[in-house]
Amino acid sequence: MGQVEIVLNSLPMSGGDGPDSYSKNSHLQRRSASLLRETIDKLIMEKIDARTLISCTNTFHIADLGCATGPNTFFLVEDIIKSVDTSLQSNSTKPDFLVFFNDLPSNDFNTLFTSLPPDRSYFAVGVPGSFYSRILPQSSVHIVLTVGATHWLSSVPKEVLDKSSKAWNKGKVHYSNASEEVVKAYEEQFGRDMERFLEARAKEIVSGGLLVVGMCGIPLGMPFSNLADSIMYNSMADVLIQMQSQGLISEEQVDTFNVPIYSASPEEVAVLVEKNGCFTVEFMELMDPTAWLKRPMDVEDVRQWIVCIKATMGSLFINHFGDHLLDDIFDRLTTKLVGLTEKVESSYREKVMLFFALKRK
Amino acid sequence: MGQVEIVLNSLPMSGGDGPDSYSKNSHLQRRSASLLRETIDKLIMEKIDARTLISCTNTFHIADLGCATGPNTFFLVEDIIKSVDTSLQSNSTKPDFLVFFNDLPSNDFNTLFTSLPPDRSYFAVGVPGSFYSRILPQSSVHIVLTVGATHWLSSVPKEVLDKSSKAWNKGKVHYSNASEEVVKAYEEQFGRDMERFLEARAKEIVSGGLLVVGMCGIPLGMPFSNLADSIMYNSMADVLIQMQSQGLISEEQVDTFNVPIYSASPEEVAVLVEKNGCFTVEFMELMDPTAWLKRPMDVEDVRQWIVCIKATMGSLFINHFGDHLLDDIFDRLTTKLVGLTEKVESSYREKVMLFFALKRK
Repeated sequence: MGQVEIVLNSLPMSGGDGPDSYSKNSHLQRRSASLLRETIDKLIMEKIDARTLISCTNTFHIADLGCATGPNTFFLVEDIIKSVDTSLQSNSTKPDFLVFFNDLPSNDFNTLFTSLPPDRSYFAVGVPGSFYSRILPQSSVHIVLTVGATHWLSSVPKEVLDKSSKAWNKGKVHYSNASEEVVKAYEEQFGRDMERFLEARAKEIVSGGLLVVGMCGIPLGMPFSNLADSIMYNSMADVLIQMQSQGLISEEQVDTFNVPIYSASPEEVAVLVEKNGCFTVEFMELMDPTAWLKRPMDVEDVRQWIVCIKATMGSLFINHFGDHLLDDIFDRLTTKLVGLTEKVESSYREKVMLFFALKRK
Repeated sequence: MGQVEIVLNSLPMSGGDGPDSYSKNSHLQRRSASLLRETIDKLIMEKIDARTLISCTNTFHIADLGCATGPNTFFLVEDIIKSVDTSLQSNSTKPDFLVFFNDLPSNDFNTLFTSLPPDRSYFAVGVPGSFYSRILPQSSVHIVLTVGATHWLSSVPKEVLDKSSKAWNKGKVHYSNASEEVVKAYEEQFGRDMERFLEARAKEIVSGGLLVVGMCGIPLGMPFSNLADSIMYNSMADVLIQMQSQGLISEEQVDTFNVPIYSASPEEVAVLVEKNGCFTVEFMELMDPTAWLKRPMDVEDVRQWIVCIKATMGSLFINHFGDHLLDDIFDRLTTKLVGLTEKVESSYREKVMLFFALKRK
């Protein structure tokens, strides 16, 4: 776990609550989250027996994995609590709710804690640690949620950084438009990570409990280059190569930079769930992304998009290229994408969010 | 609770891990803690039935209230886990341990989380909130520990700041050497706070669980002015009045500054426990403070003492007088106390730590 932890620890969302922070620039994530609300409510009402789950303790435990610094996590958690409360209405004893907010130890927990809703109806704790390992006691949670987090791999696949490997991803920042070997390396890394994720959750979630995941998705067999995000990753690579030609960064720096994000198909997740053996699939669907990505885009839309990307991936760039180049990189990226708006509009932008719900056997 | 929370939120220990930080300057607290180890071990072995406590979940829950930024909290928690493990040895199923590290939301949880022992044998979560209110679900913890925290009042008693009150504490920073009315105001504030503390813990601790408290103490009826700490508080007031006379701070600032710390006698705590009604007293004793306070003191001892006080009370001074005066205040305090070493040595320095353990009925 040592190496994995080191890579993971360098990837928190941007902390604080300043203009570039994740907490102020996570509206894209928020819209994805609101997409899920209705489905999650239905799942809670139909798929779990909340009363039986808490018969022993009368405390309902919810975990949000990869919660970052809020506020999206607060909205989702409150919705879940409302749903559980409704499903328990027939009984007079109201349980206490305990919410485990998890993220990497380097996440800005201070900001998360000071921004907790003061009138919340639950007890809140922070859980520092990678969700690719165990972070909670055995059979201790009833509903685990993770939105926009499990497409982050535990690390960049090693082969991609290895000059002697066929999967060496020279001059690119992602498996988008990359060689088959690179795509395979990312795919296999996702497979290993999801296996570890499911193993850990199988131990932590009580029998009858629910695991709800929202992450980047893609229809089976579709090349990543069809997606709007592909244009963004290609533009990112172009920007870095341009900055390299201007002597601002080295060739080595460009070649060793890769974004460890993977978009999974429902089918490949289903195989991994089957292999794990501890869960039944209660829901698995590719859903539409937010409305603003589907309507014609203007310059402001592109800006908002890149502000979100910057808040989410900023620390990745800071770790690799240093603090001083962050604004330059993202200003160039915005300019480049503003010039490609039509191309983004005409690319595949539907059903790129994978949503699945598993029940612990 | 609004006003109380505001006051409390301004009083975290010094964060980070720099030369002035609490985590680097809490050796006094550490020595107090090691004093307790043996007694806590004995209490766990003799007073609780660990196996029965976790029969329902097989997870053992420990909370440390007012944990600051470590590392003392880690040592104590590990000792408790060892003791519980030993008391469970006869049984083959080893439970998981979950430790709730609690402090005010403004505490530096980021430093706490990144300094968690990597090879720890327990799951760790952070709980932001004042322990004078509920912070955990009903009947959810088996052992609650709090060392060096409950002598911090939830706020300075109002009367002490009220010019029209007989308890107005003009020119002083504590009830040390103050009027009877001031002493009474502090005493009553402690009574109200401890009542709220016990009420909250009575709800959170399972039946048969243990509450272990180490805090500032004093023999019944002894005036605070007999204590070594009294010389420190008096010197603090002298320093502030000196700085006022030099125009560095205003008279108003001096008169509105009071340290909300109270030393309780075993007898007054016993009355409050009796009044609460949910606990039995398993242990209650005044213990000796650290060795270095008992042997003849030299200049370096005084320096170390004040470095500890600075790390513990620093933010109180920063909030009231501003960041820029902190070093000046504590440099003057050190100089003053170096000149009073003999007086400190001859003052009362024994049995000023109150240690008690309560069992939830």
